[in-house]
Amino acid sequence: MKAEYVNPFLNGTVNVLKTMAFIEPKPGKPFLKRDRMAIGDISGVIGLTGSTQGAVVVSFSKAAALRVISSMMGETFADLTDEVRDAVGEITNMISGDARRSLAELGANFEAGIPTVVVGKGHEITSMSKGPCLAIPFKIDAEDLTVEVSFEQ
Amino acid sequence: MKAEYVNPFLNGTVNVLKTMAFIEPKPGKPFLKRDRMAIGDISGVIGLTGSTQGAVVVSFSKAAALRVISSMMGETFADLTDEVRDAVGEITNMISGDARRSLAELGANFEAGIPTVVVGKGHEITSMSKGPCLAIPFKIDAEDLTVEVSFEQ
Repeated sequence: MKAEYVNPFLNGTVNVLKTMAFIEPKPGKPFLKRDRMAIGDISGVIGLTGSTQGAVVVSFSKAAALRVISSMMGETFADLTDEVRDAVGEITNMISGDARRSLAELGANFEAGIPTVVVGKGHEITSMSKGPCLAIPFKIDAEDLTVEVSFEQ
Repeated sequence: MKAEYVNPFLNGTVNVLKTMAFIEPKPGKPFLKRDRMAIGDISGVIGLTGSTQGAVVVSFSKAAALRVISSMMGETFADLTDEVRDAVGEITNMISGDARRSLAELGANFEAGIPTVVVGKGHEITSMSKGPCLAIPFKIDAEDLTVEVSFEQ
């Protein structure tokens, strides 16, 4: 996990939420962790292949997801409906796409698998990479959003 | 989603569980579904890229996971510990690897991302593919294991 891989995901998340949902999430300090575990109520997961293998997990609290997706769709959602799930998958795809474009400028080329969306109160997601996992916490007002990235090397 | 993609995943699951855990899961009838939702207590997720994009989800009930991993490790596990999570990630990786070798013989070449493992009672996983999702249900005695596969085309 190279340090220069942080900004593509940090900026990608800010860019996508600003452009798509008119929301500017406040990034906290990114950190490397060994227990590799995101906790959320709804998460998008996407696998990466290419320069090395990787995975990206975008985990929202229920409140953060409803806030972002309601703003993105211009319609108030009160529950994690199919439409909200699809939109979380789409946002995950776009964050991964934005980050992959920036990574390509650094000479690291990745392809992405199909996003999957996990729903379940307080679920935990662990990446099976051999290296540490990079966690980037964001706040949307008081709500939590975490982007976690792991690469095999 | 081509019909000939069913057997690589069905046989891959049986092969891996037989070889690694000395358990022979009984496959039920595979089916295509539109709602694309696996339900489980612990799931391995892996993204595929190559001939097309895809995702594989291997979802266990807690009882099925404990049964399989205890048998694989030769040690009784009563909870979804880190060791059990790692082993579920490893099994997901091996099922995907076994299936990818069979798919390559059919001329379809895929690379796999890093597996992620989701833990959360009764969590739901939806794949964001545009096409239908293939679900292969298995029974391990009375316990449930489901392998779901989706491809973009």
